[in-house]
Amino acid sequence: MMEKGQFTKHISQQFNEELENVRQRVLTMGGMVEEQIERAMEALENLDPELSKEIIERDEKVNAYEVSIDEECTRILAKRQPAAGDLRLVVAIIKTITDLERIGDEAEKIARMANHIALDMDNFMPSKKQFGAVVHLGNHVRNMLNEALDAFARLDVDAALKVAHKEKTADKEYNAITRQLITYMMEDPRSISSALDVMWSARALERIGDHARNICEYVIYLVEGKDVRHVSLEEMKQLAQKK
Amino acid sequence: MMEKGQFTKHISQQFNEELENVRQRVLTMGGMVEEQIERAMEALENLDPELSKEIIERDEKVNAYEVSIDEECTRILAKRQPAAGDLRLVVAIIKTITDLERIGDEAEKIARMANHIALDMDNFMPSKKQFGAVVHLGNHVRNMLNEALDAFARLDVDAALKVAHKEKTADKEYNAITRQLITYMMEDPRSISSALDVMWSARALERIGDHARNICEYVIYLVEGKDVRHVSLEEMKQLAQKK
Repeated sequence: MMEKGQFTKHISQQFNEELENVRQRVLTMGGMVEEQIERAMEALENLDPELSKEIIERDEKVNAYEVSIDEECTRILAKRQPAAGDLRLVVAIIKTITDLERIGDEAEKIARMANHIALDMDNFMPSKKQFGAVVHLGNHVRNMLNEALDAFARLDVDAALKVAHKEKTADKEYNAITRQLITYMMEDPRSISSALDVMWSARALERIGDHARNICEYVIYLVEGKDVRHVSLEEMKQLAQKK
Repeated sequence: MMEKGQFTKHISQQFNEELENVRQRVLTMGGMVEEQIERAMEALENLDPELSKEIIERDEKVNAYEVSIDEECTRILAKRQPAAGDLRLVVAIIKTITDLERIGDEAEKIARMANHIALDMDNFMPSKKQFGAVVHLGNHVRNMLNEALDAFARLDVDAALKVAHKEKTADKEYNAITRQLITYMMEDPRSISSALDVMWSARALERIGDHARNICEYVIYLVEGKDVRHVSLEEMKQLAQKK
């Protein structure tokens, strides 16, 4: 098992720098994606088409990060032929950036929904309470992502497990929002189209929670060398703690 | 550029066998996932709770495939330190199985929706026409997946490009289904809950189309060594044909 924060020390100082550099870039990409979620929530709350447009455009930058980190990882695999913990780091990064990119896509979708709702305001003025619940879910999953990236940065298995636990709350909140919106649609069928936009936004947030959990699973794999995907939270805890 | 079907011949016959073996297992996993989609569509058409249950249980087998192929890839990376085309094959496989696993999740979701609709039959008896459109989309994306796996098996860039083109049709069909269901919900608000289940199923199918396209992008990357994600279809074609 790897000690926290300790990678193999390489004879090649340059290899160390390459690994550290790519790790840093993942965190930068993560920060960018977090900001995309934050701004998408703002666009949704204020139904701000200008901000939505900026978010949609900025997604290309997120995509470019994914492609470039991916290339760097393949280059490291070919040139450095990493083993053990280093290899797991590179594999974990290849997987993490896929999830980060998809989170970026979900943020973009929310921005598009904000735009769509703004165009159809006559038929639907979402109540503060409805948006409140979505904003709450948005804060929750953004927090999950932030903590997942933190766990990745510090190679902290306990922190990763904590985030994985928070997915349940996200699912509960998402289900409550859906139920509430269905009631709303039944009471006022003219609101159906816009209420669906709010529902898709909530769905996008719920998926962001899934991706944050995936990142936590890669952290556990990276540190412990154990694959904890597709296992229950209880099993995950046990696997991670068998040291 | 790699010639079609031609991998580097290795001094180690065993390495050749390992690569061929893992490639075969990806195709087996792909076949399993195709079958999951097919059966999920059947469960949805017949609102068959027994079949739904089988599909949901079978998803664990798909997940187990992902974990095991993933481990094998990491082992190959560590032990064989592949370069060039071989390295791209391993990286492409690591990415492909993630998409296959998520397709499996979408098939499972459709099975759950079939179950849910069956429980709420009193309030909604979907018309033949509505299910017809969803079944049509289901056939379309299953076909996309089948051809994507074929392109992967034969390292066929042209076939991969063709599949990528088909994603547009999937999007169009999905949008038409959504519009139709919204009209339906507005006319009969009691149907909202079940109509949403049909909508989620259509959404799951649309995502399966996205994943099939992703697999095609990995095929192009694998054969040509070019990353064609996040580019338009036109650019993709140009990039793939610059030989």
